[in-house]
Amino acid sequence: MLTVNAYAAPSATAPLAPTSIQRRDLGPRDVLIEIKFCGICHSDIHTARGEWGGTNYPIVPGHEIAGIVTRVGAQVTKHAVGDRVGVGCMVDSCGDCANCRKGEEQHCLKGMIQTYGGAGRDGQPTQGGYSTHIVVTEDFVLKIPEGLSLDAAAPLLCAGITTYAPLRHWGAGPGKKVAIVGLGGLGHMGVKLARAMGAEVTVLSQTLSKKEDGLRLGAHHYHATKDPETFRKLAGTFDLIVNTVSAKIDLDAYLSLLALDGALVNVGAPPDPLSVNVFSLIMTRRSFAGSLIGGIRQTQEMLDFCAQHKLGADIEVIPAGKINEAYERVLASDVRYRFVIDAATLK
Amino acid sequence: MLTVNAYAAPSATAPLAPTSIQRRDLGPRDVLIEIKFCGICHSDIHTARGEWGGTNYPIVPGHEIAGIVTRVGAQVTKHAVGDRVGVGCMVDSCGDCANCRKGEEQHCLKGMIQTYGGAGRDGQPTQGGYSTHIVVTEDFVLKIPEGLSLDAAAPLLCAGITTYAPLRHWGAGPGKKVAIVGLGGLGHMGVKLARAMGAEVTVLSQTLSKKEDGLRLGAHHYHATKDPETFRKLAGTFDLIVNTVSAKIDLDAYLSLLALDGALVNVGAPPDPLSVNVFSLIMTRRSFAGSLIGGIRQTQEMLDFCAQHKLGADIEVIPAGKINEAYERVLASDVRYRFVIDAATLK
Repeated sequence: MLTVNAYAAPSATAPLAPTSIQRRDLGPRDVLIEIKFCGICHSDIHTARGEWGGTNYPIVPGHEIAGIVTRVGAQVTKHAVGDRVGVGCMVDSCGDCANCRKGEEQHCLKGMIQTYGGAGRDGQPTQGGYSTHIVVTEDFVLKIPEGLSLDAAAPLLCAGITTYAPLRHWGAGPGKKVAIVGLGGLGHMGVKLARAMGAEVTVLSQTLSKKEDGLRLGAHHYHATKDPETFRKLAGTFDLIVNTVSAKIDLDAYLSLLALDGALVNVGAPPDPLSVNVFSLIMTRRSFAGSLIGGIRQTQEMLDFCAQHKLGADIEVIPAGKINEAYERVLASDVRYRFVIDAATLK
Repeated sequence: MLTVNAYAAPSATAPLAPTSIQRRDLGPRDVLIEIKFCGICHSDIHTARGEWGGTNYPIVPGHEIAGIVTRVGAQVTKHAVGDRVGVGCMVDSCGDCANCRKGEEQHCLKGMIQTYGGAGRDGQPTQGGYSTHIVVTEDFVLKIPEGLSLDAAAPLLCAGITTYAPLRHWGAGPGKKVAIVGLGGLGHMGVKLARAMGAEVTVLSQTLSKKEDGLRLGAHHYHATKDPETFRKLAGTFDLIVNTVSAKIDLDAYLSLLALDGALVNVGAPPDPLSVNVFSLIMTRRSFAGSLIGGIRQTQEMLDFCAQHKLGADIEVIPAGKINEAYERVLASDVRYRFVIDAATLK
C-alpha cells in the first residue's frame, strides 16, 4: 500500500482538510499516476456536502485528473512510465456487459466504478484526484496528447467529455445550429467544442454578463434567457440544445426553441422532477434527452480532437489550501471557467 | 359548389346528426373523391365534444378517408377518375417552408390545414370524412394500392401513419426490441407494423384482457402494466417504446424500461403536463420524444408497405346512424380495433 497526501471532506459540513490516504498496491494491469493537476467540478461539491446522499466520509473528491505515469504493473501494455495521462469520472467497469462491449462503460449494466465515492473491485471505497497519486487499471487511463498542457487538459476529463459526447451523438457539425445553455465549466467547453466541430453556436445564458467571453470562446450568438423576447425570436431555431444547467428550467420554453427533429439534451439533472407538456414534443418531433460523460474510447477521441484543435479549458490554477474558497466561488459562479488544483501543493 | 350529405356535431353536447354541407368547386389541381369509408378516430370525439377547445360548430369529423376519384381538375396529373384513394389528417400546407420541402408537411411552419376544423386556403372551415364526397388538392391525396380493401385501409390514414412514422424514424426493425403501449386503434396498428418491420414486439397494456388478440396481431410478448413485476422484469429492455395512450403515465417507470439509447415516443398527448426525473434520461442516454402523423411521402410509403405485407386495420363497419353509439363504445374501449363508417349509409 502506498500512503499519499490528499485533501478530504471529513463530513458534509466541515471544510476539506489535508489528510493522507492509502492507494492499493499495483496489480498486474494497474498504472500508478503522479497527479499534477485536478479540476474542481460542481459534482465534487455536491458529493463533499452529501447533497446527493450516500457519501461515505472522509471523501477525497476529484475526477478531472492529469498526471504522469510513474510505475506500471507487469502486464500493462497501454501506458509506460513517463506518459502524460488522465483519469476521468470512472476507474473501472465490468468490461463484459452489452454496454461495456459497445465502449459505453459509463452505462455499464453492473454499474461503473466512480473515481471517488464508489467501491473498487477490492471492495474499498474509491478516492479521487485531490491527492498526489492514484492507482487505476490501465483501460481507464487516457493519453493526454503532447499538444495539450496538463493543467488545461485536466477539466477535459469531465467537463470536456460531458459536452463532447452529446454534441457528437446528436450530430453537431456544419449546417447545424447548436445552443449551449449556461456558460460555466461545462458550457464554456461546449461552446469551444461545438465551434470546433463546425456548428453555428449560440449561448443561452441568464444574462448578457458573460457575452464578451462567450463570443471570444467561439459562440456566434449570445442571448439572455431572462429576456422573454429571446424565446420569441429564437422559436424553432436549434437542431440541438445542450443544457449544462442543473437548476430547474421551463422545459416547454426551451423545447419551443427546437427545429424539426431537434433535441434538448440535459447533461446535468435538477434534484426535482421537471414538468413537460407532451405537445411540446409532438409538435416538430422534438426529443428531450440526457447524456452522461462518455465511454473511454470516446474520451480518448475527445482528447485527440482537443489537441488537434488546440482546445483546453480556461482555468484558474489554485493551491490545495484554496479548495474551500474555490468551492464558494464555484457556487457563486465566480470562476472563468474551471478551478484546477496544483497537486504539487499537496506535498 | 357541391352539396353533399354528411354527419355533423351541432354543438359540444348534442349528438351527431345528418346534415348537408358544401364542397368547393373543383380548382385546377383539385380532386373530387366519392368517400366509401371513413374511420372513427378518438380525435374526432375530442373535437366534436370541444375537448381541445376552439371547435367551430357544426363540425363534420373524420380524417381516415378512403374512396374513389370521380372528377379531377384540369391540371391534375397524379390521380385519375376511378383511382382508389385516401385522405388523412391534413388536406394542405404551404408547400414552401423548410419542413414542407423536407416532405414533413405535418410540421409546416405556417401550419398545415387539418382535414376538419381547419381553415382552407379559401378561408372556409374544413369539414371531414363523415360525408359522401370531399374535394382535396391532389398533393394531399394518397393512392390506396390494389391489395388493400378500402374499408380496412381507411384507418391507415391516421392510425397507420401515426404509428408507422415513429417506428421508421427510431429504426424499428430486425434486432430491435419495440414495445407498444396500449392496444387500441393506434396500438393494434403499431403491433402489426412493428412486426412486419422485423422487430421483436411487446405489448404493454394495463391488463392481460387482450393478450390473445395482441399475440394474434403479431406481438411476441404481452405484459400487464398494472403488475409492478412487469417493470422489474423488463427494466432496460427496449430500444423503442411507442406510447399510444393519451392518459397520464408514470414517465420515469416507462423510461426505466429503455435500453441504452432507447426512446420513449408519445403519439398522443395528455392534456396535463407530465413529470420527468432527468436522471431517468441521463442514465443510459434515453430520450423522451413525440411524433405527429407523418408527411405525405411517408404516408404513401406506409400504404405501399401495408399492401406489400397485407396489413389493414381490424375494423367493425357501421352505418352512419350508429356513429353516436360508436363514440360511446370507443370511450369504453369496446372496439376491436377501429369503427369504420360505411359512407353509402349517408346517402
